[in-house]
Amino acid sequence: MPLNFKATVAYDGTDFCGWQRQPQSRTVQGVIEEALARIAGCPITVTGAGRTDAGVHAKGQTTNFRTDIKLGRAELLRALNALLPEAVRIVSLSRVPDEFNARKMAKSKVYSYRIHNARPISPFDIRYVLHWPGPLDADKMARAAGLFVREADFTAFSSNRLLHPVRRIVRSDIRRRGAEIVYTVEANGFLRYMVRTIVGTLLEVGRGRIEPAQVEEIFRQNSRRLAGPTAPAKGLCLVKVKY
Amino acid sequence: MPLNFKATVAYDGTDFCGWQRQPQSRTVQGVIEEALARIAGCPITVTGAGRTDAGVHAKGQTTNFRTDIKLGRAELLRALNALLPEAVRIVSLSRVPDEFNARKMAKSKVYSYRIHNARPISPFDIRYVLHWPGPLDADKMARAAGLFVREADFTAFSSNRLLHPVRRIVRSDIRRRGAEIVYTVEANGFLRYMVRTIVGTLLEVGRGRIEPAQVEEIFRQNSRRLAGPTAPAKGLCLVKVKY
Repeated sequence: MPLNFKATVAYDGTDFCGWQRQPQSRTVQGVIEEALARIAGCPITVTGAGRTDAGVHAKGQTTNFRTDIKLGRAELLRALNALLPEAVRIVSLSRVPDEFNARKMAKSKVYSYRIHNARPISPFDIRYVLHWPGPLDADKMARAAGLFVREADFTAFSSNRLLHPVRRIVRSDIRRRGAEIVYTVEANGFLRYMVRTIVGTLLEVGRGRIEPAQVEEIFRQNSRRLAGPTAPAKGLCLVKVKY
Repeated sequence: MPLNFKATVAYDGTDFCGWQRQPQSRTVQGVIEEALARIAGCPITVTGAGRTDAGVHAKGQTTNFRTDIKLGRAELLRALNALLPEAVRIVSLSRVPDEFNARKMAKSKVYSYRIHNARPISPFDIRYVLHWPGPLDADKMARAAGLFVREADFTAFSSNRLLHPVRRIVRSDIRRRGAEIVYTVEANGFLRYMVRTIVGTLLEVGRGRIEPAQVEEIFRQNSRRLAGPTAPAKGLCLVKVKY
């Protein structure tokens, strides 16, 4: 019987068309499945907890896959990292019970979004942060961020309409670390572009174009038009998946 | 009369063929001179304190250039960073006396070399560190590093023979920061590949192939064959130029 493995994956998403396998594009799931197939000699499907978009990074994407490969855990980890492109690293690998499914059993996911609010910016950060040199009121952004902690229909903060658009955000906060403003959000699930649209809305708050109190109104009207634009992918990172 | 400007430059050297302008290749000096020429409408030569090799990074490369551009300091800084590729950032810009020359007046330069001595490695570090998962004796490396503090002929640690191969190293140390081993070296000048050959030698010491005491012998015999291999460019960074 094949064994079930859980793998935590970190990646620099800059040069990938997102997580999900696509026939013609280089994706993170694609390169991991390729590496596994080379080791196993047969196709292996990898299930990821979150389908990150093109350009989004991960420190703690969590995945699982089943295989008959006759390698120990440490050997398999080493073989995978040897075959993967440097921008994708398996951080840890462990045997898990057969019923473990990285996507279905995820209780919550934590994302962070980094905004560099100063000029100039370090060339060592540019791939991982949104550069916003203009003034931003981080205190206002923090007050608005807190208003997203709720169980609600998040359609106004997504690119498409789903049948089941209710999600539960349990953490949503803004911290300033020197020149950097970091948004952290944890929820039991996210709609498409949800974090980036919340960040886009918080940026409008920081610029004084939307008042924190208007966040309530956006939820009430449930309209994508009232929220801010979708923030760029590069600042976003899937930090952790909780089970 | 043209004004003389001093510019401190940071860059991710991964995608550049080094600092020095070359007709057919993308170099850091080349892209800065192009940006300046677009602003000034005429060619401007930029003098860099150190000619970093392909793939080498900088946090504090120091340069100067003369121009008649009728822009204030802050405007020129902003215009330059707007035109430069994101991987090259002007960190600071200031007016300096006409006699200032970034290369000739440099008293010393500080380089660091980062070695990631564990597996796995973060995909966010891979462009900036040498990944060395095998065992390294950092204490031995530190003892050997100290032996490089001297004024000496460094031909054994360079790729070519110069007429004036004497340099004076005033700092040479190894520190461990978690999984990372960082070598820092400061000298009044460096021969070609000198830091990377010293690092290659320290790695041989860390692996137990060269004893720290043998460093003396390498200087005595003055032979490139006795030193270690040239370490890869990616771990190297020009941290600071002192005047």
